[in-house]
Amino acid sequence: MSGPGVRVGIDVGGTKALGVVLDAAGSVVAEERRPTPRGENSLGPLVDTLVDLAKELGVDGSLGIGVPGLVTRNGVLRAAPNLDGVADFAVAELVGDRLGHPVSLDNDATCATVAEWQLGAGQGASDLILVTLGTGIGGGLVADGVLHRGRNGFAGEYGHMVVQPNGPRCPCGRRGCWERYASGSGLAMLAREAATGRRLRSVVEHAGGDPQAVRGEHVQAAAREGDEQALAVIDDFGRWVALGLSNLTNAFDPEVFVLGGGLAEGAELYLEPITRWFGELLYQPHLRPSPRIEFAEWGPLAGAVGAALLPGLVESAN
Amino acid sequence: MSGPGVRVGIDVGGTKALGVVLDAAGSVVAEERRPTPRGENSLGPLVDTLVDLAKELGVDGSLGIGVPGLVTRNGVLRAAPNLDGVADFAVAELVGDRLGHPVSLDNDATCATVAEWQLGAGQGASDLILVTLGTGIGGGLVADGVLHRGRNGFAGEYGHMVVQPNGPRCPCGRRGCWERYASGSGLAMLAREAATGRRLRSVVEHAGGDPQAVRGEHVQAAAREGDEQALAVIDDFGRWVALGLSNLTNAFDPEVFVLGGGLAEGAELYLEPITRWFGELLYQPHLRPSPRIEFAEWGPLAGAVGAALLPGLVESAN
Repeated sequence: MSGPGVRVGIDVGGTKALGVVLDAAGSVVAEERRPTPRGENSLGPLVDTLVDLAKELGVDGSLGIGVPGLVTRNGVLRAAPNLDGVADFAVAELVGDRLGHPVSLDNDATCATVAEWQLGAGQGASDLILVTLGTGIGGGLVADGVLHRGRNGFAGEYGHMVVQPNGPRCPCGRRGCWERYASGSGLAMLAREAATGRRLRSVVEHAGGDPQAVRGEHVQAAAREGDEQALAVIDDFGRWVALGLSNLTNAFDPEVFVLGGGLAEGAELYLEPITRWFGELLYQPHLRPSPRIEFAEWGPLAGAVGAALLPGLVESAN
Repeated sequence: MSGPGVRVGIDVGGTKALGVVLDAAGSVVAEERRPTPRGENSLGPLVDTLVDLAKELGVDGSLGIGVPGLVTRNGVLRAAPNLDGVADFAVAELVGDRLGHPVSLDNDATCATVAEWQLGAGQGASDLILVTLGTGIGGGLVADGVLHRGRNGFAGEYGHMVVQPNGPRCPCGRRGCWERYASGSGLAMLAREAATGRRLRSVVEHAGGDPQAVRGEHVQAAAREGDEQALAVIDDFGRWVALGLSNLTNAFDPEVFVLGGGLAEGAELYLEPITRWFGELLYQPHLRPSPRIEFAEWGPLAGAVGAALLPGLVESAN
């Protein structure tokens, strides 16, 4: 069994696996990174990597792993677009057999939800929604003080909420998913649409002069310089983010939203337009205290920290 | 205190209040109706009506009330568009003081959720979403075996999820709310839009010849006669219903949807198109068992039956 309170968590990304050790007080006392094995037949090497990383970090009984994909309630990774060859990959069982103790597995955004709920921006909330604004949108949900995984373990896939049925095609096959607008990819698309003629020149310059090369970070850079047209794109983006948050508010009535993912690094640009549009779009705003909107505190560590907390959650639920 | 298992529930609607007595086995053993007092200064008479109705039904300790509006977790009706003069109306306290015992109050769709979850189409499910398809759309949520009320008690307002930001204006002030398309009003709108030129003649005949007078029931009537243009409107309607259900599935991953409200009476017309479109619109349908879609079993009694069950829920949560 684990020593008192030493917990290891690993967050598997498309390019690297990040492991952390969390002490009893909830502080990260060690970090370690390894490249994520890629290509055909990479699943065996991925298990090796996870086992090695856990051992390197001194695991002795408590390991949680976060992965970028759909995870069943039995710890099977059903599919992961950014990992090669994954289909019904029993990660928890394979790693657990090698280590000789149970291993917890969940979706990376679910792990981030746990980190922010237990030790971050949403600490103490009974009803919390975390939304990760990255290349796409993921998320997680705490309902009445319990992490809500859903029937299959697939809750929190907010990115594929359709908000514009005749909108742009999404890789998932449908049109107008929220993540077409309110993610990093969405911000870039809104900017490319706005960059017609001589508009959005400052943003296009940041992208090396090619309007089609515009990415979210170019909009951010120009907006930070005070460029008004870039700020208008950020405002439009904030409206799309707020629209999804308001839809989720109607459904769940949360106490707090925590916004994480890569875009959380630009929090100072987004918070004002998101909050303002959220006030506009909220149903019956005069009858309710508005849910708080916070940015995540754990940044790129959120997934690994939340993964480290997973085994404790399982215990407390039993 | 109440006799063993005798529970009274009252569902307050815009025109009538329906009271039921539920026996220990969950059967309705008595029903009683009273007109809902209307007009200025109707709140006092409404309390009188509720007290009289409860006494008439032999209440002796266990009363729950469902109301058509936003209800706080403390039993205060914040607003109700179909009841006159309601603003911060402490229904539970006022009725409870008169009866000399605590009274439970919740939103009518939340009550219907409880009825279908405990004694109806969703019996035994841990993760359930009820959607009422009536003039508008309401609903409720059971997450991990617990009725989820939300921070303020306002969860389940699915009707105001925006699914088309440039869609028709909603009375709530926004555009393209789900209930503009997927409710009885939505069905009528889809039919009126389709009834141009000589199209949808059979439906328009059911509406007395005036395309602008078309309501959902006229579409239903023509569809039941096999009219193909009416069936095409029902199919379009089914797609809008399914789109919202698929959005909710991404967020919650429920085991079962229960569809209630007035349109549930036309279940045989709607189930096939809703289920087919839901299969098309579901995210990653190959990776998950599709949530079941059921129609409500309690019909117009759902709100009163669920209200009768509310006090028991509160007890079991304490």
